[in-house]
Amino acid sequence: MVEEVLKDEPADPTVDSGFVRVRLDLAYDGTDFVGWARQPGQRSVQEVLAAAIAQISRLPKPPIVTCAGRTDAGVHARGQVAHVDLPATVVGRAGHGAVGVEAFMAATALEQFEFSLRAVLPRDLMLQSAQRAPEGFDARFSALWRRYRYRVCDDRTQLDPWRRRDTLVYSRPLDVGAMNEAADLLVGQRDFASFCRKRKGATTIRTLLNVAWSRPAPHLAELEITADAFCHSMVRALVGAMLNVGDGRRDLDWLSEYLNRRVRGPGVTVAAARGLVLDHVAYPSAAEMAERQSLTRARRFLPED
Amino acid sequence: MVEEVLKDEPADPTVDSGFVRVRLDLAYDGTDFVGWARQPGQRSVQEVLAAAIAQISRLPKPPIVTCAGRTDAGVHARGQVAHVDLPATVVGRAGHGAVGVEAFMAATALEQFEFSLRAVLPRDLMLQSAQRAPEGFDARFSALWRRYRYRVCDDRTQLDPWRRRDTLVYSRPLDVGAMNEAADLLVGQRDFASFCRKRKGATTIRTLLNVAWSRPAPHLAELEITADAFCHSMVRALVGAMLNVGDGRRDLDWLSEYLNRRVRGPGVTVAAARGLVLDHVAYPSAAEMAERQSLTRARRFLPED
Repeated sequence: MVEEVLKDEPADPTVDSGFVRVRLDLAYDGTDFVGWARQPGQRSVQEVLAAAIAQISRLPKPPIVTCAGRTDAGVHARGQVAHVDLPATVVGRAGHGAVGVEAFMAATALEQFEFSLRAVLPRDLMLQSAQRAPEGFDARFSALWRRYRYRVCDDRTQLDPWRRRDTLVYSRPLDVGAMNEAADLLVGQRDFASFCRKRKGATTIRTLLNVAWSRPAPHLAELEITADAFCHSMVRALVGAMLNVGDGRRDLDWLSEYLNRRVRGPGVTVAAARGLVLDHVAYPSAAEMAERQSLTRARRFLPED
Repeated sequence: MVEEVLKDEPADPTVDSGFVRVRLDLAYDGTDFVGWARQPGQRSVQEVLAAAIAQISRLPKPPIVTCAGRTDAGVHARGQVAHVDLPATVVGRAGHGAVGVEAFMAATALEQFEFSLRAVLPRDLMLQSAQRAPEGFDARFSALWRRYRYRVCDDRTQLDPWRRRDTLVYSRPLDVGAMNEAADLLVGQRDFASFCRKRKGATTIRTLLNVAWSRPAPHLAELEITADAFCHSMVRALVGAMLNVGDGRRDLDWLSEYLNRRVRGPGVTVAAARGLVLDHVAYPSAAEMAERQSLTRARRFLPED
């Protein structure tokens, strides 16, 4: 499935002349999507979004939309970023140097595009903004880091019933202190093969920048986890391992050993999708953008998200 | 509809011998309920709860369940309190003075009742706890005060799509400062007839103890509103009026005049149910309970909630 999507992405993100790259900031309720990536006959964020763009722009076929974090089925987003290359006739012809009337016309066209797209998208997919992307911007390869959040309730009698949609209900009480000790073992640049589905030609080395659990309410535990990038299902496998430490079924020695074996084993449960939210993706300033893009491509062959 | 429910409630809440009064603490997602109160052929909280109690207790017919705040269709609760009188054979025979084996047997029976009831209730109706009610406890008449919360988003592009269930999306930007000035006009003991549906024989004098708006996030405004009791749809009518002040369509003079005319007029919109949550109901200590009950009954004839 992931492979299939990759084939759709242009090897060289340089835009054909006559096209303008647009950055889309998105939020969605993942419950009724099969995830970001297109799957034949299924309702994916990518497909719903591309179809809506084609509809309002009167394109002959849905455009390719590339995102920063390819979320799985049921995973939510409040900080998803994507890019799409559209004919200048749709979003205005002005280049980055445009001034005066030319710039105004382009801004108006883009505002109209944003307004129309927001109006046709379904209720569970919200366009936060559509902007002209800076020179060299690529939603996936320009990203500096991604931040996810995971929400767990370990006393289901106290959970607001309308929050079951974005909260994992866990049947054992969790020790947030122990989970933070587990988190400390994970932070840093490491080979996370133990927590990733192996893919040929792809490295599983990632840099976890921050992993921290908190208790925003007595019945809730919440994780904030930030990395340069994550492998497929890596966040949820890490959450699963930390939950097992938090409920006392596993200890830190086990986690340490498991991390170091560098092969995914049956010992780790992938935590349910509903608790996970793609919270934020960070990018460099416009000036540093082009440089960053070539750097990332060179360092990691086919990073996932 | 309200009248009909009232008829079901025993005029004298003193429990027949052989029955035990149980206090139920409840949370629910109001989206798929027609509200608390039973309505023929509809899915109400009262009916679903009573049917579940009858099922696990093998009662010949659903018991009467009385709540502290009769929420409307679509209104949520995280702090609803109800009481129900059940045969001692179901929840244990021990009186308040029971000790030793007798008390243990009763506690076990009640725990079993709580466990079973929680298991059969649907996902959108959560039993937080079932306890033996203190002497003289009445979910409605013993309540000291009720607190509600209302959640509004005035920038829909920034709302987490999975929070549409408990958030009103408002199309105009809101001035929380102005709404708090409006709130200050409302606090105190007043006749809120302008914000209530008139009912024969019922007073519309209520004491608003606290009304305060805050901005927990840049795109959100949240109200906390506390009163001894509220008339039917009073909270949502007050919210509607304050929103009209917050968006600049009305001013404080208008609110002041409207409040003082003491007749409900077409000038006030009842804000949508989805944003409203019954947050908490406060009761006196067990010792003060019996005294409180007779006091409330005397002061307000048939208070609503």
